[in-house]
Amino acid sequence: MFKDKDFVYIDYVAKIKDTGEIFDTTIEEEAKKANIYDNEKIYKPKLVILGEGAVIKGLEDALYQMSVGEEKEIEIPPEKAYGERDPNKVKTMSLGELRKQGIRPYPNMMLRMSNGSIAVVKSVTGGRVVLDYNHPLAGRTLIYKIKVVKVAETELDKVKALLERYFGSSNVDKFTVEISNDKKEVKITVPKELYLVEDLQSRIYVTAKDIITYVLPDANVLFIETFNKSNFS
Amino acid sequence: MFKDKDFVYIDYVAKIKDTGEIFDTTIEEEAKKANIYDNEKIYKPKLVILGEGAVIKGLEDALYQMSVGEEKEIEIPPEKAYGERDPNKVKTMSLGELRKQGIRPYPNMMLRMSNGSIAVVKSVTGGRVVLDYNHPLAGRTLIYKIKVVKVAETELDKVKALLERYFGSSNVDKFTVEISNDKKEVKITVPKELYLVEDLQSRIYVTAKDIITYVLPDANVLFIETFNKSNFS
Repeated sequence: MFKDKDFVYIDYVAKIKDTGEIFDTTIEEEAKKANIYDNEKIYKPKLVILGEGAVIKGLEDALYQMSVGEEKEIEIPPEKAYGERDPNKVKTMSLGELRKQGIRPYPNMMLRMSNGSIAVVKSVTGGRVVLDYNHPLAGRTLIYKIKVVKVAETELDKVKALLERYFGSSNVDKFTVEISNDKKEVKITVPKELYLVEDLQSRIYVTAKDIITYVLPDANVLFIETFNKSNFS
Repeated sequence: MFKDKDFVYIDYVAKIKDTGEIFDTTIEEEAKKANIYDNEKIYKPKLVILGEGAVIKGLEDALYQMSVGEEKEIEIPPEKAYGERDPNKVKTMSLGELRKQGIRPYPNMMLRMSNGSIAVVKSVTGGRVVLDYNHPLAGRTLIYKIKVVKVAETELDKVKALLERYFGSSNVDKFTVEISNDKKEVKITVPKELYLVEDLQSRIYVTAKDIITYVLPDANVLFIETFNKSNFS
């Protein structure tokens, strides 16, 4: 049994109940078997902070009931996943209009529209194109096969988990993190390699926010950058 | 007599020798008298770090020879100011071409060209426009009336001078600066109001660079940001 703000790492394989189609997984071999392997993705257990609401409700709810090492297969109805399908989100457009934008639609093609919304082409017939703006998983019951791999035990583990989330696994070990004995102060030194990263400041901000929200609500979180001659030679 | 890396504050009135025209000053009343008052500018003594090369050579050279409280009028020839005029930088363009860009040129109009260079319109005759890409002060002998108002005495004063330069006079007093007794460490805490300023990181970088270059070459310069609940509520 886990509780709010626990940092739980899970492996999972997720499929659509009706079709058996696997659409997401944290496990490299499973991704390859299902033909959804993405070589830009790092396959590793996923961090879920309970109560954060960053994963679908049905998955998060189930995790509260589990324990480290446990494996479980759960069925998640649409209302606890990507919602019901909305028939009003299926719209018809003229083929000419899409062609003008240089798009030659075919069934199941995914389109990112100029307003940023995403649609799936359902059919192209007689100069008319039917587009579905529903989430591709809306209306689907999902099956998640989950394994709880580990849980972050200490505050230090949790702070490092957040640094990994916002700065990447290749950078996390370059930070030093010190938590005072009374847990009132967290000192984080930023590695020099990151000083000129474009969005350093916003990453520091969200990391600090999550440390205070999920790990040490009463702490002062210090981010320290140290410069000396060697930075400028 | 000053030396390299001294932080000297000066007031000045600068004019063109030939015409007597005042083109720059640090003194509000003088700016008003000369009709060059700019209400976006804060009139106050200018910081010159000797050896930095951020002001014209003739001015910097003269400052080395002065002392606090001293007033002096100096004459600076073009080669120690904005250089000689280069006749090859005077070019002719068709009026039509400028009109196409929506520009209606008239004599003495300043133009910022599409490549970023700045030109002054010398004449507009018979469909042809003569543009001068020389610096407006090129070829001019300048007269500077200078007063050395003060000099930053301590390392702390100098660090604050640099914070003022890069973060503005309205922010400088919100920083706290601590220099260790052995001068090996400078700790600067960044005020919370600045955490989400777009270019905070680059301002920190240039400030640290100048502290190490001009004030404490062997120090570690720490910039510290502290977050706690109050940042996120």
